[in-house]
Amino acid sequence: RINPDRLWDSLMEMSKIGPGVAGGNNRQTLTDEDGEGRRLFKRWCDEAGLEMGVDRMGTMFARREGTDPDALPVYVGSHLDTQPTGGKYDGVLGVLGGLEVIRTLNDLGIKTKHPIVVTNWTNEEGTRFAPAMLASGVFAGVHDLDWAYDRQDAKGKRFGEELERIGWKGDEEVGARKMKAFFELHIEQGPILEDEGIDIGVVTHGQGLKWLEVTLTGRESHTGSTPMPKRRNAGLGMARVTELVHEVAMDYQPHAVGAVGHMEVYPNSRNIIAGKTVFTIDIRSPDKQVLDEMDQRIREGIDTICEAMDIGYEVEQVGHFDPVTFDEGCVKAIRDAAERLGYTHRNIVSGAGHDACWINRVAPTAMVMCPCVDGLSHNEAEEISKEWAGAGCDVLFHAVVETAEI
Amino acid sequence: RINPDRLWDSLMEMSKIGPGVAGGNNRQTLTDEDGEGRRLFKRWCDEAGLEMGVDRMGTMFARREGTDPDALPVYVGSHLDTQPTGGKYDGVLGVLGGLEVIRTLNDLGIKTKHPIVVTNWTNEEGTRFAPAMLASGVFAGVHDLDWAYDRQDAKGKRFGEELERIGWKGDEEVGARKMKAFFELHIEQGPILEDEGIDIGVVTHGQGLKWLEVTLTGRESHTGSTPMPKRRNAGLGMARVTELVHEVAMDYQPHAVGAVGHMEVYPNSRNIIAGKTVFTIDIRSPDKQVLDEMDQRIREGIDTICEAMDIGYEVEQVGHFDPVTFDEGCVKAIRDAAERLGYTHRNIVSGAGHDACWINRVAPTAMVMCPCVDGLSHNEAEEISKEWAGAGCDVLFHAVVETAEI
Ligand SMILES: NC(=O)NCCC(=O)O
Ligand SMILES: NC(=O)NCCC(=O)O
Repeated sequence: RINPDRLWDSLMEMSKIGPGVAGGNNRQTLTDEDGEGRRLFKRWCDEAGLEMGVDRMGTMFARREGTDPDALPVYVGSHLDTQPTGGKYDGVLGVLGGLEVIRTLNDLGIKTKHPIVVTNWTNEEGTRFAPAMLASGVFAGVHDLDWAYDRQDAKGKRFGEELERIGWKGDEEVGARKMKAFFELHIEQGPILEDEGIDIGVVTHGQGLKWLEVTLTGRESHTGSTPMPKRRNAGLGMARVTELVHEVAMDYQPHAVGAVGHMEVYPNSRNIIAGKTVFTIDIRSPDKQVLDEMDQRIREGIDTICEAMDIGYEVEQVGHFDPVTFDEGCVKAIRDAAERLGYTHRNIVSGAGHDACWINRVAPTAMVMCPCVDGLSHNEAEEISKEWAGAGCDVLFHAVVETAEI
Repeated sequence: RINPDRLWDSLMEMSKIGPGVAGGNNRQTLTDEDGEGRRLFKRWCDEAGLEMGVDRMGTMFARREGTDPDALPVYVGSHLDTQPTGGKYDGVLGVLGGLEVIRTLNDLGIKTKHPIVVTNWTNEEGTRFAPAMLASGVFAGVHDLDWAYDRQDAKGKRFGEELERIGWKGDEEVGARKMKAFFELHIEQGPILEDEGIDIGVVTHGQGLKWLEVTLTGRESHTGSTPMPKRRNAGLGMARVTELVHEVAMDYQPHAVGAVGHMEVYPNSRNIIAGKTVFTIDIRSPDKQVLDEMDQRIREGIDTICEAMDIGYEVEQVGHFDPVTFDEGCVKAIRDAAERLGYTHRNIVSGAGHDACWINRVAPTAMVMCPCVDGLSHNEAEEISKEWAGAGCDVLFHAVVETAEI
């Protein structure tokens, strides 16, 4: 079994970097804080005797040699970047859980046949630079490297420049590594496991997702002196689309979710009818057909709303992945480990996107989930217990070691 | 008659200060640009032989002496501050129109019995520091000076400090001046005069207004993994209140208007359900009872919406004035002037708030309006013609000179 106290201490130490304002973290990708988090992780990897490789997307690969150095490595990891008001565990648990697997092997003096590589994928969150899971997406061949470098944050800074600025642009070709398997431990970020009192989620599928960015163009005018019928109110248009997205998601739930999360209003003045709004839509479903139907209904709805209001619109898809079915063998390795260790477990569909969803396209992949309090995530109040983390990491350890062969 | 070319040239020269991004102006109150605009206005007043006084709210009073220096002065003016994406005429026409009255009197060598004072009221727009018409409100005894000094902009800067910073905090006690009358020339900011092809709006009334600031508190959580029924979405709540405000205004129009103009979303991330939103409501009506009913319906509606969504709310009134009936004598002076000069005219209700609305409480007051293209204002594309400006200023000239007595 792994050492839950050591794992917990490392989680707490990492959370000191990029503290949030309410007990969580703000360690957004490619900020100075991200750089500092990476340095701490590297130091721990060095201390554990691992060899660090960094690819051109800044993804970190810390390798423990196998008895057969030519055997394909087993990869394990997640991401160290956080939301602007993120929790201490989302992503971090998967990276430091991977490190804990190595530390436990070191303690026990166990050598595996296949090398094991602990991975920190760059920009999983996607808040600063859309889309999410950017580095794993390039690794899996979904995005071009140059396209990824060109992604801009809200201030117009480019991904490639910011990666260089924080000093983590490596030399390795992205996606050149071949994997025997990839395992990711993550908090559930939803309420199911805690509600049912279950230790381990065996992730069989991941929801598909579409991210749309919508721009509405009305006409700026005076709130007091513009008669109601003469208004072309882009703020009201945004409100109606926000309601539309909710209605469409409600029609398909529990097999879908959807919301508008980011909204910008121009000129954003209390006595001006908004002339322009820009906002993002996030819709998800484990069923590709549902996702496509939602997308179509929302696009049609936007057209109807804007037509009636004499408002112009543009809809751009800025993120997308199809629903994922994880590798049967890897899923079984996780279920068997939970069973063997005596943890309660159930199959679960991941509501969130994860690096594992992309890596599943190029290597046999699966995920382990542990509960989180109230299902709360993307919130500084995100919380888990040391026991939950320890159980998840135990299962990860067994699945990884079994796959890496002793 | 006044000199429309000179008036126009001055409008164009002032518009060079704090240029916008689309042909209009961004000369928000108490910015460096506001300071620069004030210096230009002061230079013009000096050249016209006027004596400048500045009160503790930074309001500028440029006086032309009368033949009876003890007679109560006639005041004329408006404001030089603009919206962040404002036009070249909103407010500026009234100040430079007042200056043109003086310049014309100087040209003609006419002395009036009563002194005439051209006024530039500080912070009419209210976008940077709510409420609008702040200095004229303090002048009229509606607000305390210290309370006004304490108003904060979005960056937490205080009105009093910013006034000091730009060097326009004067010594004069606010409101100490007594007026024989106050006249304000302003563009209509609505479509009526242009639609009906009428030169002059004789403003008999002003709409009442309420500005509410609403804070909704939901719960930040992950858009992908939070089941629909578990969401407490402050963004969706804001959308529903935005629709509510529109519906209530539509129920009372054409005797009311209303909209949400400013919206902030926290944390404003594409894959996070908003945990908090802050936004402003602007409702207006010339009928006090309608305004009060709208206010009540909106507050009840917010309660119902939030209750159903398990969202917390706060509603704070940050601006308010009752509908205004302008002084019969001053209104008649304007109507008579228009008639005498052969301009077409009609009675009109001001949709926007104006400094005249506050000053009406402490002095006989009226307003002249001229048309603006498409009724468009609070938009950089705001436009008027030299002829419209000239006609409005002619009427202003005659009403002022008649009241100031030759
Ligand atoms: N796990 C996680 O929060 N990933 C970010 C991408 C998403 O929104 O699903
Ligand atoms: N005239 C004008 O735009 N005043 C600003 C206050 C208001 O919104 O009415």
